[in-house]
Amino acid sequence: MIATSRGRQLTVSPYEGEAMINRRFVLASRPNGMPRRENFRLEEAPVPTPGRGQILVRNKFISVDPGMRLRLSDRKTYAEPVAVGALVGFSTVGTVIASENPGFEVDDWVAGFLGWQEYGLAESKGVHRIVDLRVPVSTAIGVLGIPGLTGYFGLLDLGQPKAGETVLVTSAAGPVGSTAGQIAAIKGCRVVGVAGGKAKCRWLAEELGFAAAIDYRAETDLSQAIVAACPNGVDILFDNIGNAMVDRLLPLMNQFGRIVISGQTADYNLPPAERHGLKNTLEFISKRLTMRGLAASDYAARFAAAATEMTDWILAGRLKYREDIEDGFEHLPEAFIGLFEGTNFGRKLIKLP
Amino acid sequence: MIATSRGRQLTVSPYEGEAMINRRFVLASRPNGMPRRENFRLEEAPVPTPGRGQILVRNKFISVDPGMRLRLSDRKTYAEPVAVGALVGFSTVGTVIASENPGFEVDDWVAGFLGWQEYGLAESKGVHRIVDLRVPVSTAIGVLGIPGLTGYFGLLDLGQPKAGETVLVTSAAGPVGSTAGQIAAIKGCRVVGVAGGKAKCRWLAEELGFAAAIDYRAETDLSQAIVAACPNGVDILFDNIGNAMVDRLLPLMNQFGRIVISGQTADYNLPPAERHGLKNTLEFISKRLTMRGLAASDYAARFAAAATEMTDWILAGRLKYREDIEDGFEHLPEAFIGLFEGTNFGRKLIKLP
Repeated sequence: MIATSRGRQLTVSPYEGEAMINRRFVLASRPNGMPRRENFRLEEAPVPTPGRGQILVRNKFISVDPGMRLRLSDRKTYAEPVAVGALVGFSTVGTVIASENPGFEVDDWVAGFLGWQEYGLAESKGVHRIVDLRVPVSTAIGVLGIPGLTGYFGLLDLGQPKAGETVLVTSAAGPVGSTAGQIAAIKGCRVVGVAGGKAKCRWLAEELGFAAAIDYRAETDLSQAIVAACPNGVDILFDNIGNAMVDRLLPLMNQFGRIVISGQTADYNLPPAERHGLKNTLEFISKRLTMRGLAASDYAARFAAAATEMTDWILAGRLKYREDIEDGFEHLPEAFIGLFEGTNFGRKLIKLP
Repeated sequence: MIATSRGRQLTVSPYEGEAMINRRFVLASRPNGMPRRENFRLEEAPVPTPGRGQILVRNKFISVDPGMRLRLSDRKTYAEPVAVGALVGFSTVGTVIASENPGFEVDDWVAGFLGWQEYGLAESKGVHRIVDLRVPVSTAIGVLGIPGLTGYFGLLDLGQPKAGETVLVTSAAGPVGSTAGQIAAIKGCRVVGVAGGKAKCRWLAEELGFAAAIDYRAETDLSQAIVAACPNGVDILFDNIGNAMVDRLLPLMNQFGRIVISGQTADYNLPPAERHGLKNTLEFISKRLTMRGLAASDYAARFAAAATEMTDWILAGRLKYREDIEDGFEHLPEAFIGLFEGTNFGRKLIKLP
């Protein structure tokens, strides 16, 4: 039983009688370089009570995202930095267990940004009901959530693909890159992926329809391997790595090429002084290149339509996705740190009981 | 008298009886770093004879352009490299002294790309008759030529200025920057210029309507001076300098800011290894910045309309320009080298007798 702010008793049947303790990870200290386990602290607090207009959600899937690294520094980016001592984390899928909002009912599935905690309060803004249950609910924070939408809007809006063009995707087996690459293929482009390891490359080439997949770990000369795989040059570079990769690829870009800066995983942990600097920048004038930074949140008004289109592609077998789901709330920090080691394969989610 | 390819004799009255020798500068050796006098060699050859469809032009004004530096290296850019031993140079204004093309008459003024030589042959493609003589013909290769058109299309098409935005222009007293800045002011933007020396800054602030002009030579902390002059941040950076300037300004850009790479004067002479690398690139995602390289030649179909609009602005006193005209064909190499020292003020042209 949960007491609401209006004093009503809501039945929250599956959980009734449990000790209503909310476990949550807060920022213990700001990472210096690579994030470490001790930068996060597990805290316990009472499960909060929904006020008027609020819902209480019990999380089922919690994401770890490389882009969160930016918010752990004290500089302002497109999102405010996380304060030391504050809840960390990003997107979540869960069920409503108490509702003081007429738009939600108990047992509704909702996706939102409730962070690394077992229970969270939400208002209408920032969560949405998952109404299309044709695909698993975990996709709402994967291929149909921010990662997939980043691939969708980055490729379509910033990349402006034309049939026959060559699209090079880095971190191509990740949830962003694999979505961008498959949509490029749907649009008639020739898609080349760069990924780490044979299993990822096999998946790209054999299951996702990439024209070629380059295992950067196996290549002694990565640039030469890319040149060989892109005999007509590169029209769209969809990058998730950062400056070293972009600088390497600038000389391979075609006239009027587009560079979509989707992620900068290799640069998030480095102070500017240690970061690889872009030097092949004379290519910008020579080839009239366009380089743009991407944040899917700019396209929120179009999320629902994009998710519907992507769901149709999934059901038609044209858009595939892969999830790397691990049980256990307590593994969140290690799962996040592991993203920067390039070992995980697929959208990394933590599943709660 | 000049013999044409069809054997007709054309009278070229002002020049009849002169020794018809054409002086021209060719590339003697490729510059290594800053161009030097010995990279250019003066040659003499007979004045060529126009074939069918051609005109013979006697040059009156010859330009020197920083962007030519790119073509003196052996790597391909948007233009082919100049071969060692081949004619160098860029735009010219002159008079037709013999015509085998029905579109041109003797004594017509024409602007084109005949390079660093006293006489040149041209066909319809690549030259145009100067028909609007409301402003001096030298403007056809200055404010109304590639430099001014670079400012015009770079600011309007790539910059996409909106009234009230802050536009920062570097090399702001140069022919490209001063045009871009004034057009930004015409469009209702607040324009801040960076230039070298008091005289240039006074011109920008007092005559061209810039809100502020920063003398980079006089500032001990240039970034701080720019911050102070741009209290609302920077929406459009129109850069003619190169990576060091862009990197300095990335943190000052506003959300959805546009960076127009118009010129990279400081980088043309440096091999990539010695060039400043762009490191503040996390700003691209944080602020969803767009960076684009510019070449006015992409807009050739709109040149005439743009020149007419700019001529109207000139005659209305809204668009001012400055030329730095020096007599003497033989001074072309030194004038070109001087561009990289930042000492000239205004569009640098060499005038022939």
